Amino acid sequence: MKAGHWLIGAVMLAAWTTGHARAEEWQPGYVQIAELTVDPAQLENYKAAAREQIDTAIRVEPGVLALYMVADKDNPSRIHVFEMYTDIDTYKAHLEAAHFKKYKTTTQSMVTSLNLVLMTPIMLGAKTK
Amino acid sequence: MKAGHWLIGAVMLAAWTTGHARAEEWQPGYVQIAELTVDPAQLENYKAAAREQIDTAIRVEPGVLALYMVADKDNPSRIHVFEMYTDIDTYKAHLEAAHFKKYKTTTQSMVTSLNLVLMTPIMLGAKTK
Repeated sequence: MKAGHWLIGAVMLAAWTTGHARAEEWQPGYVQIAELTVDPAQLENYKAAAREQIDTAIRVEPGVLALYMVADKDNPSRIHVFEMYTDIDTYKAHLEAAHFKKYKTTTQSMVTSLNLVLMTPIMLGAKTK
Repeated sequence: MKAGHWLIGAVMLAAWTTGHARAEEWQPGYVQIAELTVDPAQLENYKAAAREQIDTAIRVEPGVLALYMVADKDNPSRIHVFEMYTDIDTYKAHLEAAHFKKYKTTTQSMVTSLNLVLMTPIMLGAKTK
């Protein structure tokens, strides 16, 4: 346990208890958006595999900051993932991780199109939780 | 100051001090992606106005959880915003907020296309910061 963690924790605690919203900004070194289309007949199986992969990556991989997976409400087989990593090496390591390879194998026959778009952050504003 | 804030703060503090990454999941009631194209000649002015709007919205509006604005690295005038709100009423109130109206007026001549896509969360995984 590092002293810095106590300090940051204490600051967060103090901020939280005031009841006021605070802005923070993520500082990822690598951001991309994945645009996928999934076979509608396999959509629920796809989602289960994707949720397992995201949960594991966020818990196990230090540099995987956020994986936000959403579906177009009017066309649920069209899926977007907003992805934030600390840097490109973290992203490359993610692609080699066992849970990600398992997800890729499992979903290979479910994903009918995949487009990855590398992004430059303009502003990544979020509430401090 | 509510007792619940202390409890949540204490839990966050305890988690933080362990030094282990923790997964958390956002629970927004309203998520959308905005896809914009901006006049390249006015891109820097657009970004300045957008940053001001995002910073204010996150700080001032309790239900605006996150506004992540990014640009396509290969085509910087193509912009995506990943938006999370507590619910649709929060989103409607955001559209009526003074800072948002100012942003809309300022950027009216800069934005050449705007497409809003309502999204259903599948999994919104992020590191606990």
